[in-house]
Amino acid sequence: MKTHIITIGDEILIGQITNTNASFIGQLFVSNSLSVNSTSVISDDEDAILNEFERTFSQNDVVITTGGLGPTHDDVTLKCIVKFFDTELIENEEVLNKIKNILEKRNKELTDTNKKQALVPKISKPIENTKGTAPGVWIEKDGKVFIALPGVPREMKAMMEDTVVPKLLEKFPPEFVTKQLTLLTTGVPESFLYDDIKSIDGIIEKGKLAFLPSVFGVRIRITATEENEAKAEEKIFEVEQKIRAKIGRYIYGKNEQTLEEVIGKLLKDRGLSIAVAESCTGGLISSRITNVSGSSAYFQRGLITYSNGAKVELLGIDEDSLEQHGAVSLEVARQMAEGVKAVSGTDIGLAVTGIMGPTGATENKPVGLVYIGLCDDKVCTAKEFRFGNERLVNKDRTSQAALEMLRRNLLGISYDK
Amino acid sequence: MKTHIITIGDEILIGQITNTNASFIGQLFVSNSLSVNSTSVISDDEDAILNEFERTFSQNDVVITTGGLGPTHDDVTLKCIVKFFDTELIENEEVLNKIKNILEKRNKELTDTNKKQALVPKISKPIENTKGTAPGVWIEKDGKVFIALPGVPREMKAMMEDTVVPKLLEKFPPEFVTKQLTLLTTGVPESFLYDDIKSIDGIIEKGKLAFLPSVFGVRIRITATEENEAKAEEKIFEVEQKIRAKIGRYIYGKNEQTLEEVIGKLLKDRGLSIAVAESCTGGLISSRITNVSGSSAYFQRGLITYSNGAKVELLGIDEDSLEQHGAVSLEVARQMAEGVKAVSGTDIGLAVTGIMGPTGATENKPVGLVYIGLCDDKVCTAKEFRFGNERLVNKDRTSQAALEMLRRNLLGISYDK
Repeated sequence: MKTHIITIGDEILIGQITNTNASFIGQLFVSNSLSVNSTSVISDDEDAILNEFERTFSQNDVVITTGGLGPTHDDVTLKCIVKFFDTELIENEEVLNKIKNILEKRNKELTDTNKKQALVPKISKPIENTKGTAPGVWIEKDGKVFIALPGVPREMKAMMEDTVVPKLLEKFPPEFVTKQLTLLTTGVPESFLYDDIKSIDGIIEKGKLAFLPSVFGVRIRITATEENEAKAEEKIFEVEQKIRAKIGRYIYGKNEQTLEEVIGKLLKDRGLSIAVAESCTGGLISSRITNVSGSSAYFQRGLITYSNGAKVELLGIDEDSLEQHGAVSLEVARQMAEGVKAVSGTDIGLAVTGIMGPTGATENKPVGLVYIGLCDDKVCTAKEFRFGNERLVNKDRTSQAALEMLRRNLLGISYDK
Repeated sequence: MKTHIITIGDEILIGQITNTNASFIGQLFVSNSLSVNSTSVISDDEDAILNEFERTFSQNDVVITTGGLGPTHDDVTLKCIVKFFDTELIENEEVLNKIKNILEKRNKELTDTNKKQALVPKISKPIENTKGTAPGVWIEKDGKVFIALPGVPREMKAMMEDTVVPKLLEKFPPEFVTKQLTLLTTGVPESFLYDDIKSIDGIIEKGKLAFLPSVFGVRIRITATEENEAKAEEKIFEVEQKIRAKIGRYIYGKNEQTLEEVIGKLLKDRGLSIAVAESCTGGLISSRITNVSGSSAYFQRGLITYSNGAKVELLGIDEDSLEQHGAVSLEVARQMAEGVKAVSGTDIGLAVTGIMGPTGATENKPVGLVYIGLCDDKVCTAKEFRFGNERLVNKDRTSQAALEMLRRNLLGISYDK
């Protein structure tokens, strides 16, 4: 089954939004042993859309379009479907009743714009939209399938999961099973990981490996395609074990896990509580920790001591140290971690102070200089990091380094890279 | 000049990363009156790459590829360029010397992998990479241009800005000037905005309008293409004024502005200081406020009072209120705003409390229930909001609503929608 995804919308071509819909479909397909062979983005322009329908429907078994199904004037997908399949739009009673029900609940009247949303191509089966009003379109022709979905992510996602993927799996049962595993590392450069992993005998041939760097670290993706699930999983497992044996200390998790989930589980399992003091990250570390549902079990409080006054008042930082070393220093980072642990009565105190830029640098302290402090019942320490010039990237990297420092501390791994 | 962008990489097809490179090029092109006509994503597969080179180079004046230029085994773009243009790879001395210099500075030795990065197609001009080692590729043939850039965003971006766009503008001077303006709204539904704007006489025909909803609000994009800059700007201005006259109160900014920048400027201009108390958002509001460089001028501190104990201890919330109304209540939100203002000695206190889900709901308090409190020297108030079921979306929407409540308070606009 060869699949192409067309994303329709000028807003994506001009870069106003990124194409997260295609990413979502790609992920969902892989996890169902289906594959996306190619994707494209085209303008809200009738000729461009018709040409792309022509080209991709002739070269693929399945074409999925997202976007352009809405009720505003810039949405032209339905019009193009009618032309391409030489059909017409008819009112679908079921869809119209559903729209009426939704509006009734919201105490709103049925407008012409709403009515338009109940029109579907005659030769299609509507795909139910459980999260919105406009239905999707499912058309079968010459053994191929054409699917049109709305561009609103949560509507599209529900329709893909509830209807499209189950129907595609029924129509095109996968011959081979593809399994993937992504190992998540942070705090170590790609070249170092690549050279280390490359040196494992036969590893590059064994599993299809890919190295994916980002500001949060390098992800290592292992892919195996085999005749059955057991074989694919066996291959993945073998490669995973070899990689872990070599660079396991840098791997904090796998697949969709986040570092905050990983440290959350470690803290919860050990019954430890934490408090965070942030200067340069301005709340980002606490926000990430509390992205995890149930984090109230271990996250006690966060103190964003942006001003020196707040550092002294809330954390008891000694004014002489501020004077002598400056707010961005190893000594103050350590005192902040110690202070937040003490005032909160938690098992662990984590603290960051740094210069995120673009302003704030001094002769000896460049933009990107960060100190992270960490205190528990055994140690009270701080470490220097040097990041780059971009403020928001520096915030992300600082938050990741702080959480990784916490993870390594909890697992007794030294922070050497 | 017709342009197509090819992004090469399985990691994008399977949705492991989203295609931000294509978005960046789209934005950069629009701001230079160039346009991207279509984009595609294909696999790291030689046949797929060669087919896509063939198809797109025959249909466009300019083809830009990103990705697959790196030194690892899964990078095959250069190999395909050599085949497609029937050329060969030669060592470029200038590039090799640059790589040697970079490595020397980092105290590292030249490896075979590094050497490979100095190979360029014979018929190409290398594009200098100021942020990394691998150069880009610029090939002219039959009046058309083929450009290959690395996939690493900051390397690709620098090369696009410093070399590619200037050279393209010289080779293909734009005939028409395109200008765009995006107005940013929040706290009001798309259908309401659309119906209101649609009612402005002739507005839909005057400027090309697009409505782009997201969790942060609805963006309204105005596009004008005219024979010169003045005419395009005049048209944009006319449409902008008409839209502002109708729904101006909901517009917080334009183009790339963020709500935190807007409130930052308002606070700074008026010499006001702010402190934030967060429960359910866990630091996200403070983190957003401090995303703005120079925010230390008005942001004094943030208190993330996740536990009830922290609310009482740090904000002086009255225990009876917590008992009687619960931590997620209008009364506690108001007290939190009042408390954080008092303990911080700032002009404004902003506070949120709510249930982000998926757990934590009670019979009367569903997931998505949020209270936002705001106190300044004149008023001390709180407001109820009801969001959805997704934890991270709820955090984003809560942070946006809190900042918008602050904006409207600073400008004396009531929060009615």
